[in-house]
Amino acid sequence: MELRLTSDEVVKIKEGEDIYTALKRAGIYLTASCGGKGACGKCRVRIIDGKTEIKSYGKLTHIERESNIVLACQTLPNGDLLIEIPKESRLVVGDKIAVARTKDLAGYLKSYGVGINPTVKRLPLNLPPATITDNISDLDRLRRALDEQGIKGMRFSHEFVAELADALRRADWNMELVYVEGQGIPAEAIFLTPLEGCNRRYGIAVDIGTTTVVVYLVNLVNGEVVDIGSTYNSQMRHGDDVITRIVHATEGGGLNELQEAVVKDINTIVDSLMERHDIKSCEVDAATVSGNTTMSHIFWGLDPGSIREEPYIPTLNFFPMWRGGTARLSINPQSPVYTVPCVASYVGGDIVAGVLATKMHRNPEVALFMDIGTNGEIAIGNNEWLMTAACSMGPCFEGSGIRCGMRATAGAIESVKIDTETCEPEISVIGGGLPMGICGSGMIDAISEMFLNGIIDRKGKFVKGKTGRIREGEEGAEFVFYKDERRRKDIVLTEADVENIIRAKAALYAGIKTLLAEVGFTMDAVEKVYIAGGFGNYINVEKAILLGMLPDIPKERFVFMGNTSITGAYLCLLSEELRKEAEDITSKMTYIELSVYRSFMDEYMSALFLPHTDMSQFPTAAGMIK
Amino acid sequence: MELRLTSDEVVKIKEGEDIYTALKRAGIYLTASCGGKGACGKCRVRIIDGKTEIKSYGKLTHIERESNIVLACQTLPNGDLLIEIPKESRLVVGDKIAVARTKDLAGYLKSYGVGINPTVKRLPLNLPPATITDNISDLDRLRRALDEQGIKGMRFSHEFVAELADALRRADWNMELVYVEGQGIPAEAIFLTPLEGCNRRYGIAVDIGTTTVVVYLVNLVNGEVVDIGSTYNSQMRHGDDVITRIVHATEGGGLNELQEAVVKDINTIVDSLMERHDIKSCEVDAATVSGNTTMSHIFWGLDPGSIREEPYIPTLNFFPMWRGGTARLSINPQSPVYTVPCVASYVGGDIVAGVLATKMHRNPEVALFMDIGTNGEIAIGNNEWLMTAACSMGPCFEGSGIRCGMRATAGAIESVKIDTETCEPEISVIGGGLPMGICGSGMIDAISEMFLNGIIDRKGKFVKGKTGRIREGEEGAEFVFYKDERRRKDIVLTEADVENIIRAKAALYAGIKTLLAEVGFTMDAVEKVYIAGGFGNYINVEKAILLGMLPDIPKERFVFMGNTSITGAYLCLLSEELRKEAEDITSKMTYIELSVYRSFMDEYMSALFLPHTDMSQFPTAAGMIK
Repeated sequence: MELRLTSDEVVKIKEGEDIYTALKRAGIYLTASCGGKGACGKCRVRIIDGKTEIKSYGKLTHIERESNIVLACQTLPNGDLLIEIPKESRLVVGDKIAVARTKDLAGYLKSYGVGINPTVKRLPLNLPPATITDNISDLDRLRRALDEQGIKGMRFSHEFVAELADALRRADWNMELVYVEGQGIPAEAIFLTPLEGCNRRYGIAVDIGTTTVVVYLVNLVNGEVVDIGSTYNSQMRHGDDVITRIVHATEGGGLNELQEAVVKDINTIVDSLMERHDIKSCEVDAATVSGNTTMSHIFWGLDPGSIREEPYIPTLNFFPMWRGGTARLSINPQSPVYTVPCVASYVGGDIVAGVLATKMHRNPEVALFMDIGTNGEIAIGNNEWLMTAACSMGPCFEGSGIRCGMRATAGAIESVKIDTETCEPEISVIGGGLPMGICGSGMIDAISEMFLNGIIDRKGKFVKGKTGRIREGEEGAEFVFYKDERRRKDIVLTEADVENIIRAKAALYAGIKTLLAEVGFTMDAVEKVYIAGGFGNYINVEKAILLGMLPDIPKERFVFMGNTSITGAYLCLLSEELRKEAEDITSKMTYIELSVYRSFMDEYMSALFLPHTDMSQFPTAAGMIK
Repeated sequence: MELRLTSDEVVKIKEGEDIYTALKRAGIYLTASCGGKGACGKCRVRIIDGKTEIKSYGKLTHIERESNIVLACQTLPNGDLLIEIPKESRLVVGDKIAVARTKDLAGYLKSYGVGINPTVKRLPLNLPPATITDNISDLDRLRRALDEQGIKGMRFSHEFVAELADALRRADWNMELVYVEGQGIPAEAIFLTPLEGCNRRYGIAVDIGTTTVVVYLVNLVNGEVVDIGSTYNSQMRHGDDVITRIVHATEGGGLNELQEAVVKDINTIVDSLMERHDIKSCEVDAATVSGNTTMSHIFWGLDPGSIREEPYIPTLNFFPMWRGGTARLSINPQSPVYTVPCVASYVGGDIVAGVLATKMHRNPEVALFMDIGTNGEIAIGNNEWLMTAACSMGPCFEGSGIRCGMRATAGAIESVKIDTETCEPEISVIGGGLPMGICGSGMIDAISEMFLNGIIDRKGKFVKGKTGRIREGEEGAEFVFYKDERRRKDIVLTEADVENIIRAKAALYAGIKTLLAEVGFTMDAVEKVYIAGGFGNYINVEKAILLGMLPDIPKERFVFMGNTSITGAYLCLLSEELRKEAEDITSKMTYIELSVYRSFMDEYMSALFLPHTDMSQFPTAAGMIK
């Protein structure tokens, strides 16, 4: 039997096999923190055509059942099926699109001139067995061997000591000591492992975005990225942005729920990656996480309440190296977890990781860094100074809050061209299959093209009657980019979507202008603009300038970096020098609270037009419009 | 209504009140780890006379029920009652008999010339509240204040940080930081406490004996011992000595059970003491435990298996300062727990504590220390050298394995005189009430007197027909010291008891001789003999010499120290210098494994007589016998 997907993939399914298992065998992973037991209710798919046998509906609501939503792990086909996998259900594994522009990260790490030096170290030990004449305690025997290697004052946790007698004898006194040591932190033993067994060394780098979670599985010896996985952050059901999450955590008492949601997302990816590569959890003994300040707090189960209330105070910016078990990660519970340090309540470790990934903190030229994620943070500076601010863009460029929005994975419309004569759109889809939604770069293209072709006006309002592709939808006017007869779910941008995107780009542009003014620079003085974010692999710069999102400066100054949060997390996973640099960046960065600047609001109001109220700031765009 | 006890105490009991509650109100505490809910089955009492209403029998066996044993917390009187409290059921609280000879411990601490410096420290902090212009993170604010006090590099646990935001705001930025700092250990934050609330400072010193558990509640500011509690170690149901406990822990899989047993014993005492003095658990933020190596391992849940098997290796001797929560103590879970370091598998922290308590490690004169507990350990040396050995005496001097044996608490026969004419015994009972059993010092007296009066011979065999007090009991010949008509439970010493005690004294004496021979000293060279142990407040030295238990040297060289394990634990609780001294003692002490000395076995065989095969070693005793 065959399982056809609306994305045009075709998967063989065996008699008596459920949909979840068949998809997994074909390398199509669904999010399922319960591992396919019908308990978590996450592996939802929609049956479009064909007959099924449903073992259980689990947590599905009445409305979902009526819409032919089923749990893939609880559904068996009776013949061929056509199904749709909703974007939230898909765990993207092995998709290199999530990767930063620099595909060869191990090579990129080398370009920093630093060695590989993870948070965990391993020391082979061949101890003389205990005898009646050499009958010191097990721990003293270990300490004596460490002394001989010049390692002194190591700390031993109760968990470590509780396993010690057994571990030494099982390994016949011949094993590796796994321990942590780092800047200012006294060495601490983690566990002992026999030379045979769990002796390969992997780590995970995690980007905890407000909207998406990305995990790299990394070989700690050679720095190779073994595999990649990503998924939506399940916290999304409690709100799109950090503020609603904080409200849910504090007023709703949902802190534990939010922590569990994101940790399960990470664990689901990690478990899939370990299974794909036949790696044991004891072999994954280091982790680095990078996220905004709220995400970092929630990941560690820390109340983010004060972040939201004036004077906007996080509990901490520099996180001690706590353990995987404390975070409830499914890797080795004793493994150290390094959190990329945060700058302030609204500029987090993701931005520090981003600056680290651009190397702007090492160069004398003045550079601007912008991370267009759920929030939108910017940084400016060079090897002598750094300033930063947050712009409150909202999550639209990550596909959230936009009717047909999705993140930049297979099936996303990533670029759009509209024919000037016919007003018919020409789309390009990531992965080359059928379109399932539109991602950030597609939105930028789409709005610029609609504006250039007179489909929307300078305020983003639809020019009714301009083309038959404008229609009245449930939520007002919308433009149809792709008609999908089969799924009865066309891909459109609504007037509300356009408004949303204009507000987001206005916030970003106003933030850049305010920050530049604060440091006394003009746009021209910026020698490099590093653009990061999950909105797609690249942006068409001209169109982004036409939108008024990017400043109108020479095209060659723009550098696309992809997801710099994960790149920075990767760098910090492997290098002690770069962890130190991340901490230096954090200490050096001056945070500007934009909301206290009156000029920010003025700049924002002026930027709520396409491209801007003051056209003199956009000479190139003005030329294109003519 | 009245509750009369066989120990002659009388307690008023109210209508509808259970026995447990009535006794507690009168200051008579029963062990009950469940707090009197019928769940733990420990508060057993025997109803001798009177009618009762029994709510539940809980875990009592059929045999126990038939013997009129009830659970005190589940039993209400219907009129006056006469009850017996078995020794295992009684939690001894406030009884100064458990105290070391030096009643004024705070004064004794001063005699060391050290200051009061517990493992936990408190630092008052008055932080400037967060504002929009001083908006560093909570942890950075704390770090800044510590920096100003010159405290750098403090570690912050996840538990501490998780409470931080709330703790700072609840205390309105004005509080005390409780932290740990000590030799070689980097400072670590424990918790924050508002200036009002749990700001008194107490600690507990714990002696974990194989047979008994003693707890001192100590004021950490002035060193005063606030109160004292003790009970039998509930591990006893799994065997009398450390070897059977180890077998139960390893072969029986009972490690967790043994740990729980002793921790519950400690907690039951601590909870009673806190209740008596209206102290909150958050105010008890330091603990010190002293015990033999096996007890220390089991207390921390560490597998003691290797201690028993050649080459007799403990997991560790120097214990890191783990937390109260890790040990499951009912004090503040973050409080540091200091374990007095151990020397070897059979010489533990109790002996190190003992040497510390005698000050022999500070003086030039050669001294002998013996701790007559369940095992029997000895140490010899001075301020330059120290040697130690363990003698395998068994627990008889603590009252275990002896038919009517009990520890030295109220009701114990502590001395015996036998009339030369009539062979009638004259007894003296601790607390002055009716006798309930016989403690170590009573046994020494009894056997010496029986020997002097020809009731037993040099081998410890009863001379049948010598007196009507010798009778044939269930387990062979026995001598009746006290006829108890009421309880139908006379107090006797059996021939098996005498044999047991002779074996114990022989092991001790043989150990002393072997250790002296090893260091090339004669008995005469020993200038001081410090005697510690839970067998009573003093020993009649002449009678102990007559028994062949103590060497026949001038009486004035003997010093009775009482329970030195608890004294040492008390000293380590309060003084950093003395913790350091305890560690120096441990490092300096050379352990001798007696079982590998052929001469030890010879010495032991020679000592299995009263007082000894070689009477020339006991000239004074020889004189008395004549």
